[in-house]
Amino acid sequence: MSARYNFAAGSSEMPAAVLERARTELFARADDDGSTAFERPFTGATFGATLAHARARLKDLLAVPDNYHILFLAGGATQQFSMVPLNLLGNAAHVAYADSGHWSQRAIGEAGRYAAVTIAARYQGERPLAAPPLSPWRLPDDCAYCHITPNETADGIAYPALPDCGAVPLVADATSCLLTAPLDVSRFGLLYAAAQKNLGIAGMTVVIVRDDLLRRPALLVPSSCDYRVQAAQGSRANTPPTIAIVLAGMMFDWIVQQGGLAGMQACGQRKAALLYDAIDTSAGFFRAPVAPGHRSPVNVRFELAYPALTTPFIEYAAQNGLHNLRGHGAFGGVRASLYNAMPEEGLRALIACMADFTRNHG
Amino acid sequence: MSARYNFAAGSSEMPAAVLERARTELFARADDDGSTAFERPFTGATFGATLAHARARLKDLLAVPDNYHILFLAGGATQQFSMVPLNLLGNAAHVAYADSGHWSQRAIGEAGRYAAVTIAARYQGERPLAAPPLSPWRLPDDCAYCHITPNETADGIAYPALPDCGAVPLVADATSCLLTAPLDVSRFGLLYAAAQKNLGIAGMTVVIVRDDLLRRPALLVPSSCDYRVQAAQGSRANTPPTIAIVLAGMMFDWIVQQGGLAGMQACGQRKAALLYDAIDTSAGFFRAPVAPGHRSPVNVRFELAYPALTTPFIEYAAQNGLHNLRGHGAFGGVRASLYNAMPEEGLRALIACMADFTRNHG
Repeated sequence: MSARYNFAAGSSEMPAAVLERARTELFARADDDGSTAFERPFTGATFGATLAHARARLKDLLAVPDNYHILFLAGGATQQFSMVPLNLLGNAAHVAYADSGHWSQRAIGEAGRYAAVTIAARYQGERPLAAPPLSPWRLPDDCAYCHITPNETADGIAYPALPDCGAVPLVADATSCLLTAPLDVSRFGLLYAAAQKNLGIAGMTVVIVRDDLLRRPALLVPSSCDYRVQAAQGSRANTPPTIAIVLAGMMFDWIVQQGGLAGMQACGQRKAALLYDAIDTSAGFFRAPVAPGHRSPVNVRFELAYPALTTPFIEYAAQNGLHNLRGHGAFGGVRASLYNAMPEEGLRALIACMADFTRNHG
Repeated sequence: MSARYNFAAGSSEMPAAVLERARTELFARADDDGSTAFERPFTGATFGATLAHARARLKDLLAVPDNYHILFLAGGATQQFSMVPLNLLGNAAHVAYADSGHWSQRAIGEAGRYAAVTIAARYQGERPLAAPPLSPWRLPDDCAYCHITPNETADGIAYPALPDCGAVPLVADATSCLLTAPLDVSRFGLLYAAAQKNLGIAGMTVVIVRDDLLRRPALLVPSSCDYRVQAAQGSRANTPPTIAIVLAGMMFDWIVQQGGLAGMQACGQRKAALLYDAIDTSAGFFRAPVAPGHRSPVNVRFELAYPALTTPFIEYAAQNGLHNLRGHGAFGGVRASLYNAMPEEGLRALIACMADFTRNHG
């Protein structure tokens, strides 16, 4: 097969080196009991070492302070949309959410089932699209936390900076941006990220939570979803998604080999700049609906001036080995997800394809 | 490496043929977008076909009636300990549970957080151990369901038959016994089974639920854990554990190739009979604490007459390639789990090892 690239928003492309390593190591038999990774008791020492390695690598990569717990939990981000209010509401009546687009709205919908939600700031939805203004934010007095979605995977919007929420713990759904750049974890009370973008495969979510937030009394949280229980039992309070954790460890190792998060950020910024530049210099044939300064570096959303050409363009790209470019169902258009594993050659191939298509249809 | 066998209670041994297939197919690139199974968008057609195949195979194997939904959900059985009462309690105040040992007690503990739990029948804990008597069962009038654990993985106890709960829906944690024998699904309102015994890898649970039970109003269930939502959206209401579903499909295919559930049952009964016979004819050197007729065919629990020999026996077995025989932490002793993937040769090797050990220490 000739070169092919997967621009899906998730599950997304994995680095070829990680797939090669997985092909060997997932099937390698342990010295002690001869089990493959698929068959290993998750209470045993071998899997314990795998879990400890993944946790240590992630702690190093993000320089997670010692007063934070790192949890590897089953399920995706949607489950955390419930778990966050269930675990953090405590005795407060209010929670605050910034509405920055599709996924924050999904999180708000779920939180509203458990607490009174104050919209701290709102995305206007007018063009050019932008993140909510960073001040002033409306935070009620009796507020358990303030939730943001720093990168809106569907909308293609990224916050230019973090808001200042004062003493209110900042909580972030970092699913599509975690590990794409250095991040000051100490700015957050809790961060979560589903794995299938930059951390490996679907079915696992990482939660990084500050110790003091675990002291709040929880609502009636299922034990398997109780951060305190999972923190106390090292993410093994119930059946962990073992293979997802094995692969996350491999993804973390790969990031270290590529120069860590500074390396990921430099590479990601270069890729995003190339693509947005190709869009902006297409004389209007392609256009990005998001304002400069608010454009996601990982989910590049763009449209064709002639909407009737959207599907022909996506099909033409697929014929050229450039796959899964269709925009999120809520928005249409085109979306190219440029997670860590997308090589610059993939991006250059997309830009060349856009130029070819423009020549044929301009 | 010479022959080795993994008697772990879970994650457990997988068939060599399934591992071989996984080694090829997990890394094969799809015709449409060139993605491997790890990288495939779970909303796409390729993964949709994988999910539909797994569901259809399971429906065939168990002859699941058309008025049942089959769900593939993230997480393990412990999560279902919460999800069952959260989803099924409805307007009832009571739920009934049979206490048959370790895992039913865990389920009872979780259910007690949401509802008044009536113990319908109780395991006495006296030797020889046995399942709760099958009648009379105490079921309150206002009872949402009655929950059983037909095979107690830790205790090594299996019900000889199902109780008659009349109009009260019977719910079962079938984690360690599903797909080891034919089962009349129509006897149950809901069945669930974590995958890491006979359905593949850790991190996924199958739920089979009768349609009418989804009509009850739910407590405040997280959307990702709401059976109605998952049934309506074909198990894709949130991020599914994609690789676990791929592997479950392969496990189902393998069972079909081995003669289906009748084949699994015949093979399993033969293996269990051989091992229990070796224990019962060891002149007391080994002994099974569970009464005949109540002995689990998949989790064979036994003890040595001289407890000081337990660890030497387990170590001797491991030196001979027979691994993970240590009993559940709550009970000690020895436990040999004989799930579908354990070949009869593994079992015969264990029996030979027991005889050798007896000769050396008898």
